[in-house]
Amino acid sequence: MKSIGVFDSGVGGLTVAREIIRQLPNENIVYFGDTARVPYGIKSRETVIRFSIENILFLLKHDVKLICVACNTASSFALPVIKNNFRVPIIGVITPGVREAVYASQGKRIGVIGTKGTIKSRTYEAEIKQLDPKVKVTMVACPLFVPFVEEGWLSGDVVLSVAKKYLKPLTDAGVDTVILGCTHYPLLRPVIQEVLGPQVTLIDSAKQVAFEVKKILASEDMLNRGSGGKHRFFVSDNPEWFSSLAQRFMGKRLANVRKVDNV
Amino acid sequence: MKSIGVFDSGVGGLTVAREIIRQLPNENIVYFGDTARVPYGIKSRETVIRFSIENILFLLKHDVKLICVACNTASSFALPVIKNNFRVPIIGVITPGVREAVYASQGKRIGVIGTKGTIKSRTYEAEIKQLDPKVKVTMVACPLFVPFVEEGWLSGDVVLSVAKKYLKPLTDAGVDTVILGCTHYPLLRPVIQEVLGPQVTLIDSAKQVAFEVKKILASEDMLNRGSGGKHRFFVSDNPEWFSSLAQRFMGKRLANVRKVDNV
Repeated sequence: MKSIGVFDSGVGGLTVAREIIRQLPNENIVYFGDTARVPYGIKSRETVIRFSIENILFLLKHDVKLICVACNTASSFALPVIKNNFRVPIIGVITPGVREAVYASQGKRIGVIGTKGTIKSRTYEAEIKQLDPKVKVTMVACPLFVPFVEEGWLSGDVVLSVAKKYLKPLTDAGVDTVILGCTHYPLLRPVIQEVLGPQVTLIDSAKQVAFEVKKILASEDMLNRGSGGKHRFFVSDNPEWFSSLAQRFMGKRLANVRKVDNV
Repeated sequence: MKSIGVFDSGVGGLTVAREIIRQLPNENIVYFGDTARVPYGIKSRETVIRFSIENILFLLKHDVKLICVACNTASSFALPVIKNNFRVPIIGVITPGVREAVYASQGKRIGVIGTKGTIKSRTYEAEIKQLDPKVKVTMVACPLFVPFVEEGWLSGDVVLSVAKKYLKPLTDAGVDTVILGCTHYPLLRPVIQEVLGPQVTLIDSAKQVAFEVKKILASEDMLNRGSGGKHRFFVSDNPEWFSSLAQRFMGKRLANVRKVDNV
């Protein structure tokens, strides 16, 4: 039985994996977190593309039928370049989030927050404009959000004051919808919502990504008909750290996270 | 003319390179920053050792006569394992800082701050105890300090409040001397001094490291007798980013930072 492959620079992609597991409980999942080279958000386009290709080659060794790039930076930089190079379908986290945001925004003012790499790539802006050229897009990089989440600082004065600083351009621009353009950010949802106010819709693409995975597998007649999918987790470093952070990202600790040396 | 090799996970080691250049202006320097895999402070011992060996092999290709590991995490994890495996002398940043701290501490209460890896390795504690078993050592990991420095957040309410939180155990322990056990931390010296108070001596090992480099080269009769050393800088990613951060770490922008693909 073939698996769904998922990769991320580290633990963030678990927010996507969790949603895939929820919507497709009978599918096998192979997850790879590139924890030896994490984070990707500060790395160059060229390097993120190289790392992404290596991660895909790793997943392909595990007999995957579809690959989900559960990392906004990799989806922004690498997906446009590599998606047509492989035989398996490869889907990222940008397009599903964009679709939901454009649908949700009444005032056609959308904010996007993400890593430096994601924002610099302007992929979100291009995809939003392609869907609706009238939308005004405001993009802000929030580089300290990932370290905060990984340190478990999800609330409190420090995080609130950094969030206020980062998100001010979004409030100034009067956005009514904000894409959480990094798989870590859903964990900061309460503080982000507090700063932006209850009138702003926050878009976490995980649900839409999982829905898209389901749709593609269904249309290609590749859904697993058996029951009880198996979930395997591989990392390039620090399996214990990954396993303990999984509590925060997936709601449970993961047993048997395996370290692999191939990248 | 042989060079002094210096490596770090990224830009932090420039604080050490600057001091070597200041004390040994006639020496050639080859600096390597592993910016494709930065940071090291959150990675495992095994991975940091592997990366360090790869960095040393890169420097050896550039005809170096001595290697300086200008990264506390690599010095903590890798140096004890690898220093005797190579023919060139390899010196790290731990021992020189420890020597100065033990000398400076009147009350025999020393604090050490560093990355998670550096603190977890307990290398500082072991070296301090070896020099003076009576010293009480208090160690604290400050994982958000590196992102702050790289974002240029060197002062202000947020940094001050995080510093207060991190440094409380040092104040509680009544330390009179604190080792800045990460090459990024000298840039936060004002805020750290403000939190700890003027009575606490802060030890930045860069000066002592450069002094040690000089001493070894002199004793081995390897000092360059010519004048005007050349300085070359290599990185594994993002040469422009490295070059712009150099302003902060070395006091000047670096021209001609070269990206290499070999690691």
